[in-house]
Amino acid sequence: MTLSMCHSHGTEDIAEILAHSRRLVDPALQNAVARLHPGPGRMAAFTFGWVESDGTPRGAANGKGVRPALALLSARAVGAPVETAVPGAVAVELVHAFSLVHDDIMDGDERRRHRETVWKAYGIGPAVLGGDALLALAVDTLARAGGAQTGAAMLHLSAALVELVHGQAEDTDFESRPWNGPDAVTVEQYCAMAVGKTGSLLGSAAAVGALLGGGPPDLADRMSRLGRHLGLAFQAVDDLLGIWGDPEVTGKPVFSDLRRGKKTLPIVAATRAAPGLSELLAVRSDDEAALRRLAGLVEDAGGRGFTDELAVRELERALDIINTSGLDGAAARDLTALSRFLVHRAS
Amino acid sequence: MTLSMCHSHGTEDIAEILAHSRRLVDPALQNAVARLHPGPGRMAAFTFGWVESDGTPRGAANGKGVRPALALLSARAVGAPVETAVPGAVAVELVHAFSLVHDDIMDGDERRRHRETVWKAYGIGPAVLGGDALLALAVDTLARAGGAQTGAAMLHLSAALVELVHGQAEDTDFESRPWNGPDAVTVEQYCAMAVGKTGSLLGSAAAVGALLGGGPPDLADRMSRLGRHLGLAFQAVDDLLGIWGDPEVTGKPVFSDLRRGKKTLPIVAATRAAPGLSELLAVRSDDEAALRRLAGLVEDAGGRGFTDELAVRELERALDIINTSGLDGAAARDLTALSRFLVHRAS
Repeated sequence: MTLSMCHSHGTEDIAEILAHSRRLVDPALQNAVARLHPGPGRMAAFTFGWVESDGTPRGAANGKGVRPALALLSARAVGAPVETAVPGAVAVELVHAFSLVHDDIMDGDERRRHRETVWKAYGIGPAVLGGDALLALAVDTLARAGGAQTGAAMLHLSAALVELVHGQAEDTDFESRPWNGPDAVTVEQYCAMAVGKTGSLLGSAAAVGALLGGGPPDLADRMSRLGRHLGLAFQAVDDLLGIWGDPEVTGKPVFSDLRRGKKTLPIVAATRAAPGLSELLAVRSDDEAALRRLAGLVEDAGGRGFTDELAVRELERALDIINTSGLDGAAARDLTALSRFLVHRAS
Repeated sequence: MTLSMCHSHGTEDIAEILAHSRRLVDPALQNAVARLHPGPGRMAAFTFGWVESDGTPRGAANGKGVRPALALLSARAVGAPVETAVPGAVAVELVHAFSLVHDDIMDGDERRRHRETVWKAYGIGPAVLGGDALLALAVDTLARAGGAQTGAAMLHLSAALVELVHGQAEDTDFESRPWNGPDAVTVEQYCAMAVGKTGSLLGSAAAVGALLGGGPPDLADRMSRLGRHLGLAFQAVDDLLGIWGDPEVTGKPVFSDLRRGKKTLPIVAATRAAPGLSELLAVRSDDEAALRRLAGLVEDAGGRGFTDELAVRELERALDIINTSGLDGAAARDLTALSRFLVHRAS
């Protein structure tokens, strides 16, 4: 099975799942952000897409909201009303926003989601504080959730924070690693980084949702693993889109990750199979024809196929957990739709 | 009573209290830092003074360690062994280090404690991540503490995080506020900022210590207030040292806060009494004679006396809580020594 052979779940279903989650979570998210000092509060509203950088209200919110949806569905999956997981959903969305704001500073990225990044719009110093505010608010929102299992939920969230930083540090280190030889990035190292950077927070979203919904700790651990498999699949798809995605849809330049010389999974897998590629990859170019040839060589060396298969395998592992954990049937169907959506997306 | 009239507690006592705390906390702090990725881990070791920026081991640790000591003494104050509070002591010290690393980025400060700041030594991007790592580790260390009251302790810590960011945002805003008129910073606004920026974490150190030691929630709330009074007193003394401190002892340039045009408490109080001072303060100068004259005018307008009295009053409020809360006698004596030390210090 390859990505293109998988049946995608109905687009309307997933749109409704995400919209339903947003209707429940957004008011609580706005209440949380309202507790911030006006300075960091404005940056938070900007990063969530509620306002422009000058404060003008803006119609559409940013982002897909998959982490809050995963938290809510995980509560329903253990038989609880989705409302029980709202503080957890808000917390993971705040952590996600924190990580975007700070990562954009570290990576020097000036644009995200077709808009300026926070540091570009407000300055680096304020953006550091804006990210800190989102993280502080995340921890405080979950701490205030109350209930018997908030402590266990906090442990999942805080462990994810430590992993998130670890993954970001590892990703940064990859930049200075050689393209081949004994110090080159291995597929295993890449996957560990991706699980830290993307899987840990998705895992904690699912585990926190299950725990706030009153689910037993071992089921929360299974939900955590589900999220981690989804995170790795999500990152693999991100890497595919970074080379072969449609710029019109992704909002990123064509071949963006090749231009930046990023050591993504297709590259790591391709150079393992064809070490000679390393020399071509090390010479960074902005020429589109050269980048197209390079993308073709990465594909010929198996980098695209390997990444595609890994994403499918990780999705299957996630679906296997959904199907074997005795979850509520309707919630399991929605979790399946959400999981497929994360992997079968175009942007 | 003024600061100079107060009897200082024995220097040897406080040195022993802090050294005893350090012996208990440092191994746990080092174990926590060892969990970080080597990149952020190196920055953490540098910021705690264990190594130089090139990794060379360094004899003396940085900082006085008053927050961890306050956490340990608060556990003893409720009749528990100090060891119970070690995870809390580590957590508050990590939060303190996080705030220094990020504040130095925001303020553009290049030196701290006679050394380069983290961003100056490692770069801004890495320092953002280094601060994030310290904060993530702080939350995770407390979350792992176990015990019945860890959730309540986490609430104190997370509320302090939100307040800390609020205080830093407010302090930043003060810079762009006018020196006089209806939008000038008031004494009340200054005190609220200082409680947020300094008092909240000292308050959570005391409350977390008391809760991990098994103390009841209302006593933890009292300990939190104790820390908040100390924080405001501490900040007031910091402001006095920033103008009238001995540069040899503080490690900062003479009249450093006047040079930087900071709206500290002596200035805010002096301009309230003598609005004409504002014009002189707005003209920033590096000329030492001019700065000396300005410091004299601030003193003549009552800025120094007001700040001195406020510090003494806040210390008295803290001591009052120590003396009326039914605390363990020996711990109360050490808490008294620690409180006096925070106010009667020269650096």
